[in-house]
Amino acid sequence: MPKKYNVCVLGATGMVGREMIAVLEQRNFPANKFLPLASERTAGTKVKFQGKEYTVELAEPKSFEGIEIGLFSAGAKVSALLAPEAAKRGCIVIDNTSHFRMDPDVPLIVPEVNGHAIKNHKGVIANPNCSTAQMVLPLKPIYDAVGIERIVVSTYQSTSGWGKEAVAEMYEQTRILLDNPEAKVEVKYLPKRIAFNVIPQIDSFIENGYTKEEMKMANETRKIFEDDSIKITATAVRVPVAIGHSESVNIQTKRKISAKEARELISKFPTVKVVDDPSNGIYPTPIDCVGKDDTFVGRIREDISIPNGIEMWIVSDNLRRGAALNAVLIAERIIGAYS
Amino acid sequence: MPKKYNVCVLGATGMVGREMIAVLEQRNFPANKFLPLASERTAGTKVKFQGKEYTVELAEPKSFEGIEIGLFSAGAKVSALLAPEAAKRGCIVIDNTSHFRMDPDVPLIVPEVNGHAIKNHKGVIANPNCSTAQMVLPLKPIYDAVGIERIVVSTYQSTSGWGKEAVAEMYEQTRILLDNPEAKVEVKYLPKRIAFNVIPQIDSFIENGYTKEEMKMANETRKIFEDDSIKITATAVRVPVAIGHSESVNIQTKRKISAKEARELISKFPTVKVVDDPSNGIYPTPIDCVGKDDTFVGRIREDISIPNGIEMWIVSDNLRRGAALNAVLIAERIIGAYS
Repeated sequence: MPKKYNVCVLGATGMVGREMIAVLEQRNFPANKFLPLASERTAGTKVKFQGKEYTVELAEPKSFEGIEIGLFSAGAKVSALLAPEAAKRGCIVIDNTSHFRMDPDVPLIVPEVNGHAIKNHKGVIANPNCSTAQMVLPLKPIYDAVGIERIVVSTYQSTSGWGKEAVAEMYEQTRILLDNPEAKVEVKYLPKRIAFNVIPQIDSFIENGYTKEEMKMANETRKIFEDDSIKITATAVRVPVAIGHSESVNIQTKRKISAKEARELISKFPTVKVVDDPSNGIYPTPIDCVGKDDTFVGRIREDISIPNGIEMWIVSDNLRRGAALNAVLIAERIIGAYS
Repeated sequence: MPKKYNVCVLGATGMVGREMIAVLEQRNFPANKFLPLASERTAGTKVKFQGKEYTVELAEPKSFEGIEIGLFSAGAKVSALLAPEAAKRGCIVIDNTSHFRMDPDVPLIVPEVNGHAIKNHKGVIANPNCSTAQMVLPLKPIYDAVGIERIVVSTYQSTSGWGKEAVAEMYEQTRILLDNPEAKVEVKYLPKRIAFNVIPQIDSFIENGYTKEEMKMANETRKIFEDDSIKITATAVRVPVAIGHSESVNIQTKRKISAKEARELISKFPTVKVVDDPSNGIYPTPIDCVGKDDTFVGRIREDISIPNGIEMWIVSDNLRRGAALNAVLIAERIIGAYS
């Protein structure tokens, strides 16, 4: 009988945590013990896994005794505190927060892109930012074939990227504004009104005028490609969409590649689907991607402004591909089931 | 007493036509005779101008007899047919459709940028695409100061850019989906569902994989700057916003310019406002710009990926700046009041 593993999900009541539990179940993860954990605020909640109901327990250092794999998604501060405690107790942590991503001792992994780096872990493995994960997947085969000089990306990110409260805020504002377009609506979780609006701010600003989200896309992409020479600039924008991040990505390659060649390379890459027949109305939009594991790419075309450029439009379910699924794929590689 | 002019608005019942009438009124345009015109579908409707009610008349060639200035916004086909008829009768046409924009005999004008070219007209003057107009305004002082090598732009365009039916479709879909997120909603005017979604298609596709809207931004910008050497690539995306287009604009300049210098140059340019103190939450979003004449620019920062790059975020009321106001500003230049 194949070995089964003791696994915990920390942040089990959040949007990503719930998706992690769903993905573990859908992929028949060989779980022996299953332990859902959360902070004081939501401990005590019930969750279901593989037909059984579990009570979410309060996360504390001793929770991780006997746990072999921990999926963490309860915020950077919780990870900073508890990941070392878990690792110390022999639990391999797959962390979805930003806390350890740029730590040179922590591999930052999108399995299809740099799965080989998992083996360098010292107890903690980081999941990239959701916007980074979906971008590096279709760029990887292009990078391998012709090299990438520079990336200019603008994002269209859904409210679920900021948590379930942000999604609820969007719906609540929308409901009020539909009846009274002049209403002043409450803004509590996102930086401005999101209903019937777009917000060019995700996370906080740093001194150079970029947001942390934008810098994550630049720094994490370089770390995943293990290539500090790739030049990247990003503008991250929140749009009134519930689930599904979209990205308008312009790349300058080192050698010329045709749109046709780019399309072929991308379509052969695992977990990426080319959806690209625009004159027949075929290209991905966020609502098409909800609940799907793949990353969808359309509008692949040769950039008319430079000789070596490709434009593309990348869409993915940010809760799955960029978070829950990516974490479970790492877990599967660790246990060797799919390596 | 200053001279007054006989003026008509063709497409008087559309979103832009109504805004043209409002702007003529707000700016106290010296109108002698005022004639609202439309196609058969809406002729007969009543509109108000300077305190009087007018019945919208059916547009035909003889409508333009005795009219000195015509503001056209009834679609490219109507302009193709009626602009030459109007011009033949001595009416100077300011055309908001795409039909004449790239015609070498027709000046394409954003008054603050290339007002000097108005004088070359032969009876027809073109208004640029709304996305182009708002982009060239803040770029003009940068272009003059340090030159522009290349522009990479991704847009976040409101539904009103596709007409009032598209706005109504967005609200109708939203209302249905709020109560039933799984509902299949009707899609009639926009290419896909827009509620809680984004659509990477504006206008139809051409052979190179770009849309007409994207090509307009490239070609019109070069024509307005009278510089075919500027390299431009665009991705035009529809977002669920009623009014107000936003643009994430990356420019590569010929000589280095700091973010501070760029901010100063832009802030001195007429009808452009810098709204740029991001760490205090100050940057423009579309809902802030509705009904305003200015073009708003924020998130001005030095591109971290190249030595000579600037990123910025440009927002404007697409019905006003990119359409109605631009047309009236051209009319004002023609009559010499503001030249």
